[in-house]
Amino acid sequence: MVKTSAGPDTFEIGDLVERALAEDLSAGDPTTDALIPDGMTCRAIVVSRGEGVLAGGSVAEAVWKRLDPAIRTLSILLDGSRVSPYDASLGREGGVIAEIEGGAAAILKGERTALNILQHLSGIATETARLVEAVEGFPARILDTRKTAPGLRALQKYAVRVGGGGNHRRNLGDGVLIKDNHLAALDREGLGLGDAVRRARARAPHTLKIEVEVETIEQAADALDAGADILLLDNMTVAQMTEAVALAAGRAVTEASGNVSLHNAKEVAATGVDFISVGRLTHSPRALDISLDFVE
Amino acid sequence: MVKTSAGPDTFEIGDLVERALAEDLSAGDPTTDALIPDGMTCRAIVVSRGEGVLAGGSVAEAVWKRLDPAIRTLSILLDGSRVSPYDASLGREGGVIAEIEGGAAAILKGERTALNILQHLSGIATETARLVEAVEGFPARILDTRKTAPGLRALQKYAVRVGGGGNHRRNLGDGVLIKDNHLAALDREGLGLGDAVRRARARAPHTLKIEVEVETIEQAADALDAGADILLLDNMTVAQMTEAVALAAGRAVTEASGNVSLHNAKEVAATGVDFISVGRLTHSPRALDISLDFVE
Amino acid sequence: MVKTSAGPDTFEIGDLVERALAEDLSAGDPTTDALIPDGMTCRAIVVSRGEGVLAGGSVAEAVWKRLDPAIRTLSILLDGSRVSPYDASLGREGGVIAEIEGGAAAILKGERTALNILQHLSGIATETARLVEAVEGFPARILDTRKTAPGLRALQKYAVRVGGGGNHRRNLGDGVLIKDNHLAALDREGLGLGDAVRRARARAPHTLKIEVEVETIEQAADALDAGADILLLDNMTVAQMTEAVALAAGRAVTEASGNVSLHNAKEVAATGVDFISVGRLTHSPRALDISLDFVE
Amino acid sequence: MVKTSAGPDTFEIGDLVERALAEDLSAGDPTTDALIPDGMTCRAIVVSRGEGVLAGGSVAEAVWKRLDPAIRTLSILLDGSRVSPYDASLGREGGVIAEIEGGAAAILKGERTALNILQHLSGIATETARLVEAVEGFPARILDTRKTAPGLRALQKYAVRVGGGGNHRRNLGDGVLIKDNHLAALDREGLGLGDAVRRARARAPHTLKIEVEVETIEQAADALDAGADILLLDNMTVAQMTEAVALAAGRAVTEASGNVSLHNAKEVAATGVDFISVGRLTHSPRALDISLDFVE
Amino acid sequence: MVKTSAGPDTFEIGDLVERALAEDLSAGDPTTDALIPDGMTCRAIVVSRGEGVLAGGSVAEAVWKRLDPAIRTLSILLDGSRVSPYDASLGREGGVIAEIEGGAAAILKGERTALNILQHLSGIATETARLVEAVEGFPARILDTRKTAPGLRALQKYAVRVGGGGNHRRNLGDGVLIKDNHLAALDREGLGLGDAVRRARARAPHTLKIEVEVETIEQAADALDAGADILLLDNMTVAQMTEAVALAAGRAVTEASGNVSLHNAKEVAATGVDFISVGRLTHSPRALDISLDFVE
Amino acid sequence: MVKTSAGPDTFEIGDLVERALAEDLSAGDPTTDALIPDGMTCRAIVVSRGEGVLAGGSVAEAVWKRLDPAIRTLSILLDGSRVSPYDASLGREGGVIAEIEGGAAAILKGERTALNILQHLSGIATETARLVEAVEGFPARILDTRKTAPGLRALQKYAVRVGGGGNHRRNLGDGVLIKDNHLAALDREGLGLGDAVRRARARAPHTLKIEVEVETIEQAADALDAGADILLLDNMTVAQMTEAVALAAGRAVTEASGNVSLHNAKEVAATGVDFISVGRLTHSPRALDISLDFVE
Repeated sequence: MVKTSAGPDTFEIGDLVERALAEDLSAGDPTTDALIPDGMTCRAIVVSRGEGVLAGGSVAEAVWKRLDPAIRTLSILLDGSRVSPYDASLGREGGVIAEIEGGAAAILKGERTALNILQHLSGIATETARLVEAVEGFPARILDTRKTAPGLRALQKYAVRVGGGGNHRRNLGDGVLIKDNHLAALDREGLGLGDAVRRARARAPHTLKIEVEVETIEQAADALDAGADILLLDNMTVAQMTEAVALAAGRAVTEASGNVSLHNAKEVAATGVDFISVGRLTHSPRALDISLDFVE
Repeated sequence: MVKTSAGPDTFEIGDLVERALAEDLSAGDPTTDALIPDGMTCRAIVVSRGEGVLAGGSVAEAVWKRLDPAIRTLSILLDGSRVSPYDASLGREGGVIAEIEGGAAAILKGERTALNILQHLSGIATETARLVEAVEGFPARILDTRKTAPGLRALQKYAVRVGGGGNHRRNLGDGVLIKDNHLAALDREGLGLGDAVRRARARAPHTLKIEVEVETIEQAADALDAGADILLLDNMTVAQMTEAVALAAGRAVTEASGNVSLHNAKEVAATGVDFISVGRLTHSPRALDISLDFVE
Repeated sequence: MVKTSAGPDTFEIGDLVERALAEDLSAGDPTTDALIPDGMTCRAIVVSRGEGVLAGGSVAEAVWKRLDPAIRTLSILLDGSRVSPYDASLGREGGVIAEIEGGAAAILKGERTALNILQHLSGIATETARLVEAVEGFPARILDTRKTAPGLRALQKYAVRVGGGGNHRRNLGDGVLIKDNHLAALDREGLGLGDAVRRARARAPHTLKIEVEVETIEQAADALDAGADILLLDNMTVAQMTEAVALAAGRAVTEASGNVSLHNAKEVAATGVDFISVGRLTHSPRALDISLDFVE
Repeated sequence: MVKTSAGPDTFEIGDLVERALAEDLSAGDPTTDALIPDGMTCRAIVVSRGEGVLAGGSVAEAVWKRLDPAIRTLSILLDGSRVSPYDASLGREGGVIAEIEGGAAAILKGERTALNILQHLSGIATETARLVEAVEGFPARILDTRKTAPGLRALQKYAVRVGGGGNHRRNLGDGVLIKDNHLAALDREGLGLGDAVRRARARAPHTLKIEVEVETIEQAADALDAGADILLLDNMTVAQMTEAVALAAGRAVTEASGNVSLHNAKEVAATGVDFISVGRLTHSPRALDISLDFVE
Repeated sequence: MVKTSAGPDTFEIGDLVERALAEDLSAGDPTTDALIPDGMTCRAIVVSRGEGVLAGGSVAEAVWKRLDPAIRTLSILLDGSRVSPYDASLGREGGVIAEIEGGAAAILKGERTALNILQHLSGIATETARLVEAVEGFPARILDTRKTAPGLRALQKYAVRVGGGGNHRRNLGDGVLIKDNHLAALDREGLGLGDAVRRARARAPHTLKIEVEVETIEQAADALDAGADILLLDNMTVAQMTEAVALAAGRAVTEASGNVSLHNAKEVAATGVDFISVGRLTHSPRALDISLDFVE
Repeated sequence: MVKTSAGPDTFEIGDLVERALAEDLSAGDPTTDALIPDGMTCRAIVVSRGEGVLAGGSVAEAVWKRLDPAIRTLSILLDGSRVSPYDASLGREGGVIAEIEGGAAAILKGERTALNILQHLSGIATETARLVEAVEGFPARILDTRKTAPGLRALQKYAVRVGGGGNHRRNLGDGVLIKDNHLAALDREGLGLGDAVRRARARAPHTLKIEVEVETIEQAADALDAGADILLLDNMTVAQMTEAVALAAGRAVTEASGNVSLHNAKEVAATGVDFISVGRLTHSPRALDISLDFVE
């Protein structure tokens, strides 16, 4: 079973829920207002229509609670659970994610918002879990990147953890990463990659490691000589990565990046890199199909 | 060329830009602060690495302007432009989306945030355009849904318009849509689909049309008899849709929904439906690969 | 008794309460701080000084709860109740709206803010109810407009519903309404009213009806021919309205607008229009006099 | 002509404009988006349909500028100007409040929001000016109260100043005002009105005057003996007020309050009170009818 | 023991707590996430390392509750309590401020934020109490000023009250204070100090007293003649202050200001001034050393 | 001269300025409104009354610009400049920080807010610069801590940089720091300091260094053996620090912490530590005395 080192912070959920509900409800819900009698209560189930890993259960719950604190939700599956397509004949065991009871109007008004969050985060957890599985047996850890959807980073990165992956930088502040454009800028001053590493070491906060994006073995060697802590092997061939890993041994950890997918993840992991960071986990996730059904 | 009836409202961009920048910059950018000298300026180009339709140019520009009003951006391609992979040998004509000039530090600090927005929106516009093309020659218009990423709805829907699609409801307030769960709730009171339509007509704002989700021809007939304005044909077969369209003729417009993709869009359009709404446009978009390169 | 199809959304109340309290309390309450001993509790009643319809009870309660969650409020009259001037000799039956118990300081600090909201919304509900009564027996439904006080629209429109009226557009997004200035703009392109209706039909979301403001019978006829769903009869004479209603029959619903008040509402309703929209309900409401009295 | 001691603070306008626009535009403006071609510009005039005093011109301007900074507004009449019903035959002199030029779409999208603000504030200024006029020749100054619409207090109080009135407390923090409920609370501790005044003097900030609400001549005498700075004569008869003014002479200033209107303001002023505070100025204002017309 | 007339308003705490937590936790707490097992609970004590007066206990509690509502805090010392350096051998009596029990992760994540607030406010209360003590026996009351840390004013002023001091203006709106720069501006119009006082009396809200900053006996005399309510004796010598107090007797209250500290407060108080306002209480407070210790 | 690697981010200033102005101006400025004629302009200088290092000039400027964009400020001294007490006889050279020209009312309304920020930040820069000077010639760099005033962290840390110091963690996310309470929690699971370091290495983001707070030489040795990157020498004696530095050599960098001040900074630096972190820089700064004078 997937172990999440830390849940989505209560602290981070509030604003997102507020914003998402505002998007959908700022002009009310005339359909529900017209149709549903005051005081009607109902019971509903949240079910999966696909295979995957669940993430975002507590956020979805917060959506409904925000509309009506009296709604009771019973999570049947926790974040990190494997989920299969709903099969009514299996009862609760068959893909039921949660049960929810309370005012019918509030449940309907929050439905889309809650499901949107659940589908998005579960989609990310699912794709992460597949990659994690693909590299099983190798030391490499699957990481996300900062290529996230605006406003959703903290939750997207939580979903990656739920799927068994790790988080690369949460923002520009929690790591030094010298990239091609930094090097291009310094080059105009006559400074090379080694100078960049040394300048970062001297000036950046001492709590941060120095990571350098390298595209060639020569750059990797320069970075290591200058004392880089981490090499980001950008778009290298498998052969190059293998060579870079050998070169780094004992001096820096290595991270592969660039177009890694289910098709080549194992091959990349076999090079011995310590980390594989995958932008598509968060910039192009495929939602897991999840829906809500009223039950009698 | 794609015609956008209305740009992303200036009014909607501000908050998103603020939020996105806060996510990335709340703890500063120690890499750039350590490496880039005060006052250094640079010139950079924003280039596509894939085929697609551009969307979000003005939002990306707003990101950089927010960090430094003195940054000058020169959009070479407008939203809605077709873009091909960057080919340096072709100069500006070869996939260059924009040029940007100004403080190197601010350009670097805003890079990821600006590109994240641009990639996400262009991905949506691109997929929309493909679907629009697929149904060319048929009356059907491609629409989005409310299955959007939390906090990004207005911009995602703008991107759909850029791609040539139309917008379904922006929120629960701008249309009456009676869905399965509404019907399930009313059923407990002994009310049927026709009753639901009549109740909505009597109580909902008179400026809104009444749309009903139907799964069978019988339901379609009931909805039409009760005076529904729009039929949402949910997960129907092509044969059912064809029958429903015939049935509706002159009485209501029809909308196909449920698992429409590039593979079957043409077939669905051939049924004669007026609209095809596609959740995946916004719930599972694939980012267009776009990057920033410093130029000497 | 008045039936409200939907209460003020919990979702909408929070911000308003926060803002209203901030307005009054941002520099504290030195009077209460100086006079009222820590820990003093009290009991108070909220009473009406006039005839009317109550609206906003739950919002007023939220004000006090925000200052002190331990305050207990006992609503004696629900929103929509008819209320008469307080008569102490009748006990609870004589115009007592609510009883409140708890910390004396918090009750005093929230008094003005709670009463301001209650007076304003009850004033709107009261005037709406009078108009609704005036047109009883006729098909016409009384509606509000978008002529609302900035920041108070959702609650003002809730009060209209409490008073028995209906809501016209909540915002620009939940209906297409082609007005004189739109027509003036299109006229410069050589386009007429019929062209406007057709253009709106083709381009606006399919979930929205097309309403057109017409000032003459000729315009009404053009609108009908072009397929308008709703005619807004703007400042027409009773004779013109009667003619327009006859013309529209079976093709569009009709809405009268422009200087309708208690004096002429019945006469307007007698023309057979489906709706009468009244700006003054929200742009010029007269507050219902409501006050708070400490009781022994 | 009316002299305003201070304009509405730029500082206060921003949030209100943002909030008001969000209310109207959160789901876009499909009418304008469908009808108005990109890039169309227009010229329009803002005109009065009634007699009154203008207030809020700069706020209305801020609404349009927020939507499109390129819109040019030319204020023809300044806040505080007397305005008559628009008479086209008189040209600019005949009731034209402002001219506005720029993008037709933005002007239409902001129209209702701008006019709502202008109508509301001008209504308040107009009613204030009538009362000010009614008491001309007497020392009494017309004041507002804290009976304001939630979220609009600062602007409503600005409009009162524009109309020639003065402002009573802006919030609970800028004056000590001992009211009936404070006295009722202290009574339970065996403390009287004089004790309340003395306690306030000892404990409240020394920068604030002590005002006491009195309903009888006896209370007025007690308050004066205890050193109150201001007597609020609450719902007194003209005879009582005259007596209280005489009693206060040289020791405290006096303020009449309670159901003062155009019908009795002069009579109240004739008692010699220093101030007359009028709740209805802000709790029940009647909007001034103002509209926008596109011109050729 | 110190008596606080009013606690920090619940109303004011929320935003500050939110903001402070956001500052520290916007990128999570990787240390705690990595080390502390899910579900671990703990008990901790908050202890003082110095002598002082406690302030801010409820704010610190709110910090932890915000992260985890299940955390239980047991305040052992109330705001206003004298506190000595923690002495473990004395048990709870020896400087233990509070006990806290609950999730170990949440307690650790909130630790720094809670302590920062507690240390800052207790530092202010402590310094205020020392000054209050220094002037004991004299009529003078110790006041704060508007020289506060941005965003912290309400809480800083609460801490001053906890320490036994009083509050000068909370903001520019709750008192009229004519300062040197106002006089300099009016001088250019040929108006003197007396004119300024008279103009303020005529135009400023009648609920506010008129205070004037004077630097010489001549200015003091002018202010008194013009009817000033309060004299702010700015940077005067003890002799000047004594003279000004004598001059003011019976006509205005007096306030000493300018570089008052523990060294000279008694001497200043001996001049007979009614108030002594001290900027350093809030612009240069020294934090009280307070820490958190996990217990068995 | 002090070199600041990066200015205060424009991005961070806006909110603070808004919040600070709201604190002071939410009820207007009746003094200025009463006294200063509309349209009066003035010229003023901002001057220092003490010795120090200037910080916050651009923030103060933003305060005034927020109130009136037309105000012109001419910074004479840049952040990081040494400043001496104003001496009018020296003209601009004698301690004048800035000149400001524009509307007199806006300058007066923003005065206190602008000066509060300038005084606070300059105070921090000044004290930092003194400590930096004290350790000149030694390798040790002066750092701040997370003991900051709520809501002011980013600007306080900017001021430390202006004063020549460096920044320790900006928030909990940009470094792993294992402290006594973390160790106490793990101890209950039978895990020691070395285990903590290893667990952090395995689970925390790979971009962060592992720092451990140690109080004894034994702990220092354990931390080094477990591979800690940084040793935080907490409240050690000079002798202990010297030993720890020797022990760490080549394996980890060292940071001294705990009650370092001007009196002992040199002695601490002489132990050879790489960093000295000083809480009082931000938790107990002394404001630099700065004021505004109108000039003719």
